[in-house]
Amino acid sequence: MQAYLDNAATTKMDDEVIDFMHQIMSTHYGNPSSIYESGRQSRVIVEEARITIARLLNVSPAEIFFTSGGTESINTIISGVLQNNEVERVITSPIEHSAVFNSLEFYCKQYNKSVEYLTVDTNGLIDLQELDELLKNGNGKALVSLMHINNELGNILPIDKVSNICKNNNALYFSDTVQSMGKFELDFSNDLLDFAVASAHKFHGPKGIGFMYINGNNKLTPFIIGGSQERNMRAGTENISAIAAMAKAFELSCSIIDETSKRVLELKKYLIHKLKNDFPEISFNGDVNSISNILNIGIPKSNKNEMYLMKLDINGVYVSGGSACSSGAIKDSHVIKAIGKNELIRPIRLALSKYTKKEEIDYFLKMLKKL
Amino acid sequence: MQAYLDNAATTKMDDEVIDFMHQIMSTHYGNPSSIYESGRQSRVIVEEARITIARLLNVSPAEIFFTSGGTESINTIISGVLQNNEVERVITSPIEHSAVFNSLEFYCKQYNKSVEYLTVDTNGLIDLQELDELLKNGNGKALVSLMHINNELGNILPIDKVSNICKNNNALYFSDTVQSMGKFELDFSNDLLDFAVASAHKFHGPKGIGFMYINGNNKLTPFIIGGSQERNMRAGTENISAIAAMAKAFELSCSIIDETSKRVLELKKYLIHKLKNDFPEISFNGDVNSISNILNIGIPKSNKNEMYLMKLDINGVYVSGGSACSSGAIKDSHVIKAIGKNELIRPIRLALSKYTKKEEIDYFLKMLKKL
Repeated sequence: MQAYLDNAATTKMDDEVIDFMHQIMSTHYGNPSSIYESGRQSRVIVEEARITIARLLNVSPAEIFFTSGGTESINTIISGVLQNNEVERVITSPIEHSAVFNSLEFYCKQYNKSVEYLTVDTNGLIDLQELDELLKNGNGKALVSLMHINNELGNILPIDKVSNICKNNNALYFSDTVQSMGKFELDFSNDLLDFAVASAHKFHGPKGIGFMYINGNNKLTPFIIGGSQERNMRAGTENISAIAAMAKAFELSCSIIDETSKRVLELKKYLIHKLKNDFPEISFNGDVNSISNILNIGIPKSNKNEMYLMKLDINGVYVSGGSACSSGAIKDSHVIKAIGKNELIRPIRLALSKYTKKEEIDYFLKMLKKL
Repeated sequence: MQAYLDNAATTKMDDEVIDFMHQIMSTHYGNPSSIYESGRQSRVIVEEARITIARLLNVSPAEIFFTSGGTESINTIISGVLQNNEVERVITSPIEHSAVFNSLEFYCKQYNKSVEYLTVDTNGLIDLQELDELLKNGNGKALVSLMHINNELGNILPIDKVSNICKNNNALYFSDTVQSMGKFELDFSNDLLDFAVASAHKFHGPKGIGFMYINGNNKLTPFIIGGSQERNMRAGTENISAIAAMAKAFELSCSIIDETSKRVLELKKYLIHKLKNDFPEISFNGDVNSISNILNIGIPKSNKNEMYLMKLDINGVYVSGGSACSSGAIKDSHVIKAIGKNELIRPIRLALSKYTKKEEIDYFLKMLKKL
């Protein structure tokens, strides 16, 4: 028996999406930048994918740009904004994903901009009044970088409120939406935000492909330089089959958001109920109103459970202590540190998907008992 | 009838490679950065691909880094080297691919380094003595960026000679090897060069995946910032299935280099013979000893043949006037300009592959007659 409960790290691809990608790879190899028939056919596939994605976010296709994934999208946006001399400061939180966290640090240093971190409470909640005050009291145009759904805690930031605060203070707003795309109803119309990003493998699409939303009011310096693909915003031959597969996976996920949320929320409630009953020592991290597919729990630190993730792994339970994106090294989670719980607990992030079965939850609980 | 003669722009994927990629997508979705079993299985696939590629280039696996393709690899190397304060100048040629050409211009401006262009003769040949003199007479450590096989002319640069000149002058050597990987016997041992790049879709692999060779003597600042994937050199979840498929495609291509070269050279000779006999007005661009799969010809400019590429396209002949990487716009080729032939001829690049049939050559000749 196995239990894959790490769907915030990556997800199983939909069979339908794999087959579609296979089909495109077999039939469409023309370079979309070539002017002849087979190139134009590839171009049509790329542009249809762009239209699909734009429609689902209620934006213009001209605001969607394809990249190799979430991290490249994040680098493009952050480096692009900070190269712009108008922006002088960045306001962010200490619980952003390392792709954002490390990029902000790197590019702020490179372009000589300041970074300010909002405080978060012990549930990982951000004080929006503090954001407003910082923006009002500071000097110079700001970029606000606050993720939508936290990848470790599942906390949901009210992006409409952040959007209003940013608009009132003439700040640019970038939200890392990697965990919300395809899982949460999104509508970016009415200039809700300036920048957002997606990674297809988080919603049952292929790895190595993603997109960014750049609000039409903004113009960025491109990140990858070369040919004039993606209307001069991203050089490199378009990954046709992966782009098409991503659009299909996104469409599939968006079409069942309600249904999936309901189903995984049932599982999550069941999990919480069982944990509360059978594991009184276990604590819960993050906001109680976190997204339906993520639950972060803490087991009290003891010498006995130091190797807890490995023990779970040996028994076929696949979960994370934090984010996966740190190269296999079991490092303490910077998010759990930021909410002040690092000394007390060992965190387990449980991330469900439409493929998660109740038996996997039961199996996890059984193996947790053995720790 | 159709004739696809644009294999320097992109190639048809091998069916075997498509099937293999399909299989990996179906079975391995674990994040290679996760420490549990399904993550480790993905990690094994990624590392086996690295070992395969390293073996075929006779380098260490630690010198191979996966990226989203040729252009990202080029950006990583050029921006990485130029951020380094030791390097003060770049020497390159006016016939590099736009990914190199534009990146050099962009990053040299950003990091305040000078770019010098070697002269090329009317055949697109580079004067290596001029390179040596420039290096000897200039001040400051140099990066020499000279492509191996020119994507438009097919000219083959003697990289061993360039390597010696660079070593003698303590310069770093980067060669854009996108057109040679999988098509030309390469051996990077004995520190032949410092940096090289590959794009899988040029050798019948998938689009959206590539790799870079970074000689172990060099340490670069990463280009895409975030998690610590690729030993901190390239953040972002690894594109497992595409990496595995690329290694397979590379292995397949390398295993039949002699055979393929021989076969396409026969076709090229036949093409040249026919052109010389039946089209006395046609000229040949580039070196006579160009690579076996590329032939660049020129038809004398006239008002009648202004729309020549479109006319060929309408008849199912898929060829380029230059590189495809300029977003569908039919721009004059900067390579043909650099060899001084832009005012005289309209260029047609014919790029063959192992899949090219003699009937396609005959069909092209027939349609060329109709122009």
